[in-house]
Amino acid sequence: MRHPSLITLLTDFGSQDAYVGIVKGVIAGINPSARIIDICHEIPPQDVFRGAYLLYTSYKYFPKGTIHTAVVDPGVGGKRDIVCVKIRDYFFLVPNNGILSFILQEELPEEIVRITNTTYFLQKSSRTFHGRDIFAPIAAYISCGVKPQQLGTHIQQLNKLDIPEPIRTKMGHIIGQIISIDRFGNLITNITKKHVRDLKTAEKYLKVTIGKRKITGLSTTYVDVETGKPLILFGSTGFLEVSVNQGNAQEYFKAGRGNKIAANPYK
Amino acid sequence: MRHPSLITLLTDFGSQDAYVGIVKGVIAGINPSARIIDICHEIPPQDVFRGAYLLYTSYKYFPKGTIHTAVVDPGVGGKRDIVCVKIRDYFFLVPNNGILSFILQEELPEEIVRITNTTYFLQKSSRTFHGRDIFAPIAAYISCGVKPQQLGTHIQQLNKLDIPEPIRTKMGHIIGQIISIDRFGNLITNITKKHVRDLKTAEKYLKVTIGKRKITGLSTTYVDVETGKPLILFGSTGFLEVSVNQGNAQEYFKAGRGNKIAANPYK
Amino acid sequence: MRHPSLITLLTDFGSQDAYVGIVKGVIAGINPSARIIDICHEIPPQDVFRGAYLLYTSYKYFPKGTIHTAVVDPGVGGKRDIVCVKIRDYFFLVPNNGILSFILQEELPEEIVRITNTTYFLQKSSRTFHGRDIFAPIAAYISCGVKPQQLGTHIQQLNKLDIPEPIRTKMGHIIGQIISIDRFGNLITNITKKHVRDLKTAEKYLKVTIGKRKITGLSTTYVDVETGKPLILFGSTGFLEVSVNQGNAQEYFKAGRGNKIAANPYK
Repeated sequence: MRHPSLITLLTDFGSQDAYVGIVKGVIAGINPSARIIDICHEIPPQDVFRGAYLLYTSYKYFPKGTIHTAVVDPGVGGKRDIVCVKIRDYFFLVPNNGILSFILQEELPEEIVRITNTTYFLQKSSRTFHGRDIFAPIAAYISCGVKPQQLGTHIQQLNKLDIPEPIRTKMGHIIGQIISIDRFGNLITNITKKHVRDLKTAEKYLKVTIGKRKITGLSTTYVDVETGKPLILFGSTGFLEVSVNQGNAQEYFKAGRGNKIAANPYK
Repeated sequence: MRHPSLITLLTDFGSQDAYVGIVKGVIAGINPSARIIDICHEIPPQDVFRGAYLLYTSYKYFPKGTIHTAVVDPGVGGKRDIVCVKIRDYFFLVPNNGILSFILQEELPEEIVRITNTTYFLQKSSRTFHGRDIFAPIAAYISCGVKPQQLGTHIQQLNKLDIPEPIRTKMGHIIGQIISIDRFGNLITNITKKHVRDLKTAEKYLKVTIGKRKITGLSTTYVDVETGKPLILFGSTGFLEVSVNQGNAQEYFKAGRGNKIAANPYK
Repeated sequence: MRHPSLITLLTDFGSQDAYVGIVKGVIAGINPSARIIDICHEIPPQDVFRGAYLLYTSYKYFPKGTIHTAVVDPGVGGKRDIVCVKIRDYFFLVPNNGILSFILQEELPEEIVRITNTTYFLQKSSRTFHGRDIFAPIAAYISCGVKPQQLGTHIQQLNKLDIPEPIRTKMGHIIGQIISIDRFGNLITNITKKHVRDLKTAEKYLKVTIGKRKITGLSTTYVDVETGKPLILFGSTGFLEVSVNQGNAQEYFKAGRGNKIAANPYK
């Protein structure tokens, strides 16, 4: 692995306060040449699931050695651990609260270190802003070449969220659910290409039911259907998505995260 | 032109997802020393007109050689082209959907290349996230010194939006419209200094009518009038603006984009 | 002081326009190697008090030599001055409108320069966008090594806001107020550890009254109480905060900035 120097930030800190800027200031004070890229700061407060999903969809697109720092941390200041996890040539600096769950469905961690070495914390650490006092300086020191094993003690297990899996009914239907809704109102489900392949149906006969409405036939991009019309496709994350061409599927279907989506062959 | 290394991003990706971060990750993976500056990511979904306006008001303020990457792209994955356009020592990497229209009112492109060389695309490109799969890597390669002609084939014409022009009535009045409303509620019109000069009236006698309300006399800055009072001035973009000193003209006048604004000499 | 090269930006420009991007473009054109970090751009329009609070809570976390550029500037284009102020090895480039008030409660400026040297302004400066035309180029030139005294003339005094101080009642109670509400709904008051020490009560007997509700006992972090329950603690800024564990105290208490908070020993 080459010497890491890129740090990403994914938090629920929002943009109305100075919290993100402060975190960057601390990093710049320790490693002035560290490069910082924001993945997202608009995670709804304490929404670890959404943080886990966005981290999963983005981490691979960064260069190897990147230090992904994810602070969605409802347990801040309590007994939860902060861990540094090495997966596929990436470092993850996260609270041990399940925020790596989507990634751990596909990858095994090479190394997990529970961070205890206060030498690398900010002096006079608070118990309410670990982003500033622990995550920022630790990320900066890793970017300077500090090794995970210098940060604390190895542990074997990570906490995981309960990631919903699609189920298969006796009739052979797949019942998945919406796991993410993006800015454009696209409804991203937990149904993958593998699930659909198992249905053994031609793409043009794939039928999706959302509420009382049905969409038949898999599209390959939004403009495959007329403006304002709904469609289904495998989106850029690899999951089945329900969209509306140049519209908003969330509004069109009045849908929310967790809503069920059924997929089955059209008869 | 000096070796370009600054990349700007202007998109409708918003801030609630990881899309912008992913684009930056891809760029950093190809050119770790490329500098990236966000122009705006809060373009309303698919609002090419607003993207065109913001790009026009900002592009000149960047150093020569900057690669302006604008992804407001309702036609993503369809037949629309992606083009690299060289204008006044700047590169523009954009869908060919009119997003350069405001700029093309003032400037002629030196070179237009339709991007077809998939060598520079991300492997396994999707048809729904060209920001990640095409725009990001191409921008990064241009910042590494790849020339536009290496990206595809030259074309002669760019698509253009229908940019509204003020009209002149028989009575000699100018009827313009609001083309942009900013965060402060300033109402930016398509009326320029030239249009007002043609009215041949003293600045203090210039009268603007918006809805049923009138403002007389051109100000030079907001505090020329009392707090809470409306005014007209030529704003930082060069267009006639309707503002309220330390207030919000959009709320004051209940105005929206496209609303008509008349300008004429006061009698 | 080492050669400065980090510039921070704190503005009320928001994210829907291109204003912040333009400011960065101007800086990059003058000093391509200047590093820029955003502190916050979502200050409500013209809310100098909030800008002052956020600048105070963040400035120290940046490396020495940082050029803090704060543009919350209701008087833009009018008679207010723009000043460069040196405090504790930091540069502050601000309108002279009180935005340093919180900092000046703790620190004395070493040097105050009223900026008048138009050599360092953008050519053809507007009177409505000094962020682009004056603040950006001046910050960039300071980052290139230009000294404050080259920018204008020394002055002795800075304008200050009226920062509310807690008062002490005859009964020995402290009456403070909410000075900031963050993204998480935490209610940050102007009551400090010193004020509470003066109450001479054990931490577990400290009682806070907000509206008709009372909270007794000082917590050290959010998870000290059950999920959804309110608490009081000294937050990461050093001020007494009213919070709800994994909830939103602003909604819980229907509180707003300026609301009174009483603190007194529990009997």
